[in-house]
Amino acid sequence: MLSRLKMDRIHVGIVGGTGYGGMELVRLLLEHPAAKLHCLVSRSEAGQRVDDVFPHLRGRIDKRFQAVEDADLTACDVVFFATPNGVAMHQVPALLANNVRIIDLAADFRLRDPDVWAQWYGEPHACPELLSEAAYGLPELNREAIRNARLVANPGCYPTAVILAFLPLLQAGLAGPGSLIADAKSGASGAGRGAAVDNLLTELSENFRAYRVAGHRHLPEIRQAFDGIANCSRELVFVPHVVPMIRGIHATCYAEVSGEVDLQAVYETTYRDEPFVDVLAPGSHPETRSVRGVNLCRIAVHRPPESGRVVVLSVIDNLVKGAAGQAVQNMNLMFGLPETSGLNFSPIAP
Amino acid sequence: MLSRLKMDRIHVGIVGGTGYGGMELVRLLLEHPAAKLHCLVSRSEAGQRVDDVFPHLRGRIDKRFQAVEDADLTACDVVFFATPNGVAMHQVPALLANNVRIIDLAADFRLRDPDVWAQWYGEPHACPELLSEAAYGLPELNREAIRNARLVANPGCYPTAVILAFLPLLQAGLAGPGSLIADAKSGASGAGRGAAVDNLLTELSENFRAYRVAGHRHLPEIRQAFDGIANCSRELVFVPHVVPMIRGIHATCYAEVSGEVDLQAVYETTYRDEPFVDVLAPGSHPETRSVRGVNLCRIAVHRPPESGRVVVLSVIDNLVKGAAGQAVQNMNLMFGLPETSGLNFSPIAP
Amino acid sequence: MLSRLKMDRIHVGIVGGTGYGGMELVRLLLEHPAAKLHCLVSRSEAGQRVDDVFPHLRGRIDKRFQAVEDADLTACDVVFFATPNGVAMHQVPALLANNVRIIDLAADFRLRDPDVWAQWYGEPHACPELLSEAAYGLPELNREAIRNARLVANPGCYPTAVILAFLPLLQAGLAGPGSLIADAKSGASGAGRGAAVDNLLTELSENFRAYRVAGHRHLPEIRQAFDGIANCSRELVFVPHVVPMIRGIHATCYAEVSGEVDLQAVYETTYRDEPFVDVLAPGSHPETRSVRGVNLCRIAVHRPPESGRVVVLSVIDNLVKGAAGQAVQNMNLMFGLPETSGLNFSPIAP
Amino acid sequence: MLSRLKMDRIHVGIVGGTGYGGMELVRLLLEHPAAKLHCLVSRSEAGQRVDDVFPHLRGRIDKRFQAVEDADLTACDVVFFATPNGVAMHQVPALLANNVRIIDLAADFRLRDPDVWAQWYGEPHACPELLSEAAYGLPELNREAIRNARLVANPGCYPTAVILAFLPLLQAGLAGPGSLIADAKSGASGAGRGAAVDNLLTELSENFRAYRVAGHRHLPEIRQAFDGIANCSRELVFVPHVVPMIRGIHATCYAEVSGEVDLQAVYETTYRDEPFVDVLAPGSHPETRSVRGVNLCRIAVHRPPESGRVVVLSVIDNLVKGAAGQAVQNMNLMFGLPETSGLNFSPIAP
Repeated sequence: MLSRLKMDRIHVGIVGGTGYGGMELVRLLLEHPAAKLHCLVSRSEAGQRVDDVFPHLRGRIDKRFQAVEDADLTACDVVFFATPNGVAMHQVPALLANNVRIIDLAADFRLRDPDVWAQWYGEPHACPELLSEAAYGLPELNREAIRNARLVANPGCYPTAVILAFLPLLQAGLAGPGSLIADAKSGASGAGRGAAVDNLLTELSENFRAYRVAGHRHLPEIRQAFDGIANCSRELVFVPHVVPMIRGIHATCYAEVSGEVDLQAVYETTYRDEPFVDVLAPGSHPETRSVRGVNLCRIAVHRPPESGRVVVLSVIDNLVKGAAGQAVQNMNLMFGLPETSGLNFSPIAP
Repeated sequence: MLSRLKMDRIHVGIVGGTGYGGMELVRLLLEHPAAKLHCLVSRSEAGQRVDDVFPHLRGRIDKRFQAVEDADLTACDVVFFATPNGVAMHQVPALLANNVRIIDLAADFRLRDPDVWAQWYGEPHACPELLSEAAYGLPELNREAIRNARLVANPGCYPTAVILAFLPLLQAGLAGPGSLIADAKSGASGAGRGAAVDNLLTELSENFRAYRVAGHRHLPEIRQAFDGIANCSRELVFVPHVVPMIRGIHATCYAEVSGEVDLQAVYETTYRDEPFVDVLAPGSHPETRSVRGVNLCRIAVHRPPESGRVVVLSVIDNLVKGAAGQAVQNMNLMFGLPETSGLNFSPIAP
Repeated sequence: MLSRLKMDRIHVGIVGGTGYGGMELVRLLLEHPAAKLHCLVSRSEAGQRVDDVFPHLRGRIDKRFQAVEDADLTACDVVFFATPNGVAMHQVPALLANNVRIIDLAADFRLRDPDVWAQWYGEPHACPELLSEAAYGLPELNREAIRNARLVANPGCYPTAVILAFLPLLQAGLAGPGSLIADAKSGASGAGRGAAVDNLLTELSENFRAYRVAGHRHLPEIRQAFDGIANCSRELVFVPHVVPMIRGIHATCYAEVSGEVDLQAVYETTYRDEPFVDVLAPGSHPETRSVRGVNLCRIAVHRPPESGRVVVLSVIDNLVKGAAGQAVQNMNLMFGLPETSGLNFSPIAP
Repeated sequence: MLSRLKMDRIHVGIVGGTGYGGMELVRLLLEHPAAKLHCLVSRSEAGQRVDDVFPHLRGRIDKRFQAVEDADLTACDVVFFATPNGVAMHQVPALLANNVRIIDLAADFRLRDPDVWAQWYGEPHACPELLSEAAYGLPELNREAIRNARLVANPGCYPTAVILAFLPLLQAGLAGPGSLIADAKSGASGAGRGAAVDNLLTELSENFRAYRVAGHRHLPEIRQAFDGIANCSRELVFVPHVVPMIRGIHATCYAEVSGEVDLQAVYETTYRDEPFVDVLAPGSHPETRSVRGVNLCRIAVHRPPESGRVVVLSVIDNLVKGAAGQAVQNMNLMFGLPETSGLNFSPIAP
């Protein structure tokens, strides 16, 4: 396989190419030196030229969206699902049986327990037997499993920002017994490209609010990761908010920490060799635009005086490190490519 | 009636009328049925017509900004200071001596301890003897003192949103011993109208970040209020963020709460008679635009399952309930007017 | 006085209260000293409390939306239609027969020629016999007809800004024979509150584009008004654009002008007695925020050197002078109230 | 020289690296396969690490800004000036004398007539003898001159969008004798990164306005280009506006056109071989986000019925095709590289 890959680019299929995750996958894969877009599947846009649906791609892609039944997905080396939750699980088993590897950007394979999945997603899981096989696609947590996986569950955007913020603390056993708190803020692209009054510019602009305080679907995903890291269940309060901007997540994470440990050193050590996590200098305040368009999480660690608390600030681009970029990072790992392949460029600012 | 009003209207002076707090005071006082703008002082714009500086006020005001030495401030019944921190304290004693009442929208009289003031504001206080006399102008906390005050220290915008969020909990002694956390988000007008690269649209738009995690000047102000309420010092972690919008503050406030107390009832009871605090129905998520342009704090109380935490969401318009509107509310109290006078209109949405 | 008002307030019905035009009507009428909201009709929200649908109105209105068949519209003195195009024309004849006056914020009664209407709106008109009776509700053009009208066709938002920009020029016969050009820019609320991918924040924000250059429905409306003013058909090129903001229209209008006429004087004279048109000083550039939330059109007149052209800049709030505010202005005229009643307050800036 | 270049990357210096043009040059040149950033000059930030000033570049650049006297500019193959107007003209002669080629992103060398320059820029030109030598750096107009130039005057952002919109029409002699009109709209980054109240988010957001209708400095630049193309002076009305967004220019351009000529074919033919101009299909409306971050001008041609007018819609990213990208395109031409080198990637949307 590797030798074929050396000669031939990785053939990639994308199912659900018309949402923001799919759009961003197209952008990244068009520039990827070792990948080739083989087919793009969209139910709603089947037959349309990709650059008619996305005029910003005129001159860069000469393909049409296909219906799933017309697409040659089994000829792909890897298929990305950028579909709504609950779609991939119906198509993945057949593709795996054809030796196609899968990276699912939706939530279908993120939770290991099918009962928990059913509880949060409102229907029974269609292939629960695959849940334990799927590798949770956060390389900083799970790199070796991803390398060997047939099926990768690409993490949610909030979980990526929040887990990377807490990971060094939990691995080192430094968080006190109280609840962890993740106060997270996301740009509007996190809600997807569906037509909804709540997501109109006229409703979101000049406005800020929390949502789903009673329980967001990313909560069980983060808790599951915490269980794996700390080997014990950790309570988490997770409050998401929507920011009047397009891209970006900022997670402000709080934990009790006692003692005199040098947290800055702990974070720097944990992420020293990570190409896509950047621990800022003490006193820094990462801003979401500093990662706009790139596959990167920037983190700063603060200890407000006399509070017994650590405050970790974590930013990502929800469509890149929080979705399509991380998916490409996972593809690189699965196919033995340099992990940064196709992901090594500068953010766009301002 | 008209002739009585002509004689009886409160004569108002505004010092520092060219910032956003001053602009908003002008808007509110122009419509106030019992107030009359007597003079507006601005060092930088002295001699200019108000509606040349603020073209949106064309046709509504026929005055010029004056230099402080030309303005007849002692003929005013009340003078609002909407100046930068450290200005009012030099002018207030002489005005008080002339029986002019003062409402200071800056921080000069908010902290009772002159050493704490000097520590956070970087210079010695010019009239420390007035600090204990000044009434902290949060009517929901301090109404009677305000009614009788010569000098009111109008609260900061963040403190207004945060104190109102925690007040019922602290008064009822329901917050556990751990640190309180206030994760606060503000629109850009909170930073004022000064020329600064950091506040350009090109720097703030499509961007989100925290700032001053190591210590914001509103922290000692909130702590002082907490001390007064709970009669004991409470630790607070306060993290401010800037949102790419003009107006609005959203404070997401966390506390430990044990036991089965009905927090919704506690909040509703506390604020039952408050004209400017609205406790939303359980499960609500207040949005900042729901208070845009009006003197109102909307609050929702959440208890995430299994967390032992309460999450209180609190929104205000930082320029109204967080500044000019609250100042007018204080003026109403000081002059025996109905508390809602001039403040009883609908938010503008979308 | 209070008892007289209780009896005498105009009873108002609103059909289609859940779009942005309807929301703005509610805001304005709640503060109107001589009007009383009698009923609000919404097909989609029938049975819902108004302040559940629009939480920003909590505490200000204690009514529910009703289905049209449950609403007591015939008991109203006036009914505003804030419905999509093509709805009012089916309900208006019966209401007129019951002596209810009508102000339609949609396009149903704006065009006098039923064939032109059918051509632009894609269906035959349901009551063409009313088209010649309806008064075009631009008071600056048509005040006397409005005073006496049973049925007022409230102008479109673009036509309001564009006609007011060209009116003095056309009335004075000063525009040369070449085409008039109106390059118009609108905030996103002009597109309404419907769920549509094109109007998501993620699609509109950080973006600018023209639309419908080949022909927008406001074009025949403007042309009809020009015909009435200049007594001859004038060609117009009208290009609308969408601005990433919520409220506001800016029309940049171009015409050939020859000779040495003092255009500033012509504009000032034309609008000298108009309460809701403000001609700015020479050299000014009106900004949309200077009219945010208020019923006002601000205009500036420029003559670029050596060009033989006049450039007229005209701004309104599309939801106020471009919709609900103008509708209230028309109501005031129809009921013999002071024209500025309920419309006399300051813009909100920033 | 070329043989050295084949082995060694082009050594590049940037003077004025801290504005938005300079930031964008850094982004583009960091990814350029044949260029190497040799030195960055900034008076205000001399001694600072580039990634301390621009944290989004952490991990991508390991250099410091230098004072001009410390920088080894004469060792560069090419120096870009991204300084305010009036700076480059004082430094360019000495660099040219050292065989360093120059690309000036400011206006110093754009106008051929030193009197016109002095009139619009308010001071005498420091090296008028270079004005006739400088090549106007719009490749679509002037490619051969650029290839052979020592000194390139990179066009203004508005002129790039406007000239490319009118070029096919003027070259073909199709525009009628009336004035041309360019109604242009720019994002806020066009005003630069200087601290100015007018450019605060609080002033620009939720707002739209025209500015400098009486005369903008880009007007003589566009006129000069029109003179060169059409071999006769053409009047132009140019009205710039500021859009509440960061990046992007949309020019809506109007001209009289008589006869039945197929304008779509004229435009497609003119730009058939241009790598960075994209003529859209008839009926299209280009949006600014479709060129965000890339070196591209997209154009659509409309003929509103019965108007005798053509409407050309033209969009660019003002910082890329309107500044830094075009500068790199010019560098590629000057050094015999493929014209698209370092500029061949996809826009970022949404």
